[in-house]
Amino acid sequence: MADILHRVGMRTPAPEKVYEALTTVDGLAGWWTDDTKGNADVGGVLQFRFPPVGGFDMEVLEAKPGEKVSWRVVDGPEEWIGTTIDWQLRQDGDWTIVLFQHRGWAEPVEFMHHCSTKWASYLLSLKSLVETGDGAPAPRDVQISDWH
Amino acid sequence: MADILHRVGMRTPAPEKVYEALTTVDGLAGWWTDDTKGNADVGGVLQFRFPPVGGFDMEVLEAKPGEKVSWRVVDGPEEWIGTTIDWQLRQDGDWTIVLFQHRGWAEPVEFMHHCSTKWASYLLSLKSLVETGDGAPAPRDVQISDWH
Repeated sequence: MADILHRVGMRTPAPEKVYEALTTVDGLAGWWTDDTKGNADVGGVLQFRFPPVGGFDMEVLEAKPGEKVSWRVVDGPEEWIGTTIDWQLRQDGDWTIVLFQHRGWAEPVEFMHHCSTKWASYLLSLKSLVETGDGAPAPRDVQISDWH
Repeated sequence: MADILHRVGMRTPAPEKVYEALTTVDGLAGWWTDDTKGNADVGGVLQFRFPPVGGFDMEVLEAKPGEKVSWRVVDGPEEWIGTTIDWQLRQDGDWTIVLFQHRGWAEPVEFMHHCSTKWASYLLSLKSLVETGDGAPAPRDVQISDWH
């Protein structure tokens, strides 16, 4: 098993914005993809789409304000199905620290390398959304390679 | 053991620039840190510094033009010492694809999460250097958190 790990920090007087950006359809659409739908409550399923290439369905496993959000991938690329995505939040003075883990990849395939870099760019989009009000969700996301 | 993995693609008519950016002091200073010194030949040691917080010494293990560059960390933060950094290069049409692996972390500590995100931002700096002639090496690097 192999994991993608990241850490970003957001300097914001309103740390609840980070949690909202991870637990509401509008918030998620502000940094990951414009085309976000579904039910963000625990037990619900969120649909993230990246036209024209597909997307991911995530079951919300856990959502504790200011502490943790957890998803399980229930549909999407074969390599993603069954993997989990955990967001741990904490406040350090002026900074909201986000520890991100996308766990349970069966093999460290080339697609995993791509997803790791792409997650980093989306985390910086989340940081920008929280700090400035403006993220870079798909289709306005940063292109990192031929795989977009 | 835990690994940091990334993948970026550079669209350039001069793929040799990617290899140069990984195997010359001037090239490395163009995307990672201004304060790069040392010997970039196989068997040599490169010194990367990020004033005022320290840096890394890397022994060059391997350098095959257009294919692979490999380093071993011989000095720096405790968690980095003994880890290896591999760069695999290949040409796919107009794109130079870089697979990056920073392998051999003893534990997936919080600092590893930070380094993973920070590597992604430096890889995008490398991409920018190759594609536009202008990277964002330290101290002009993207700040991703309270840990810089």
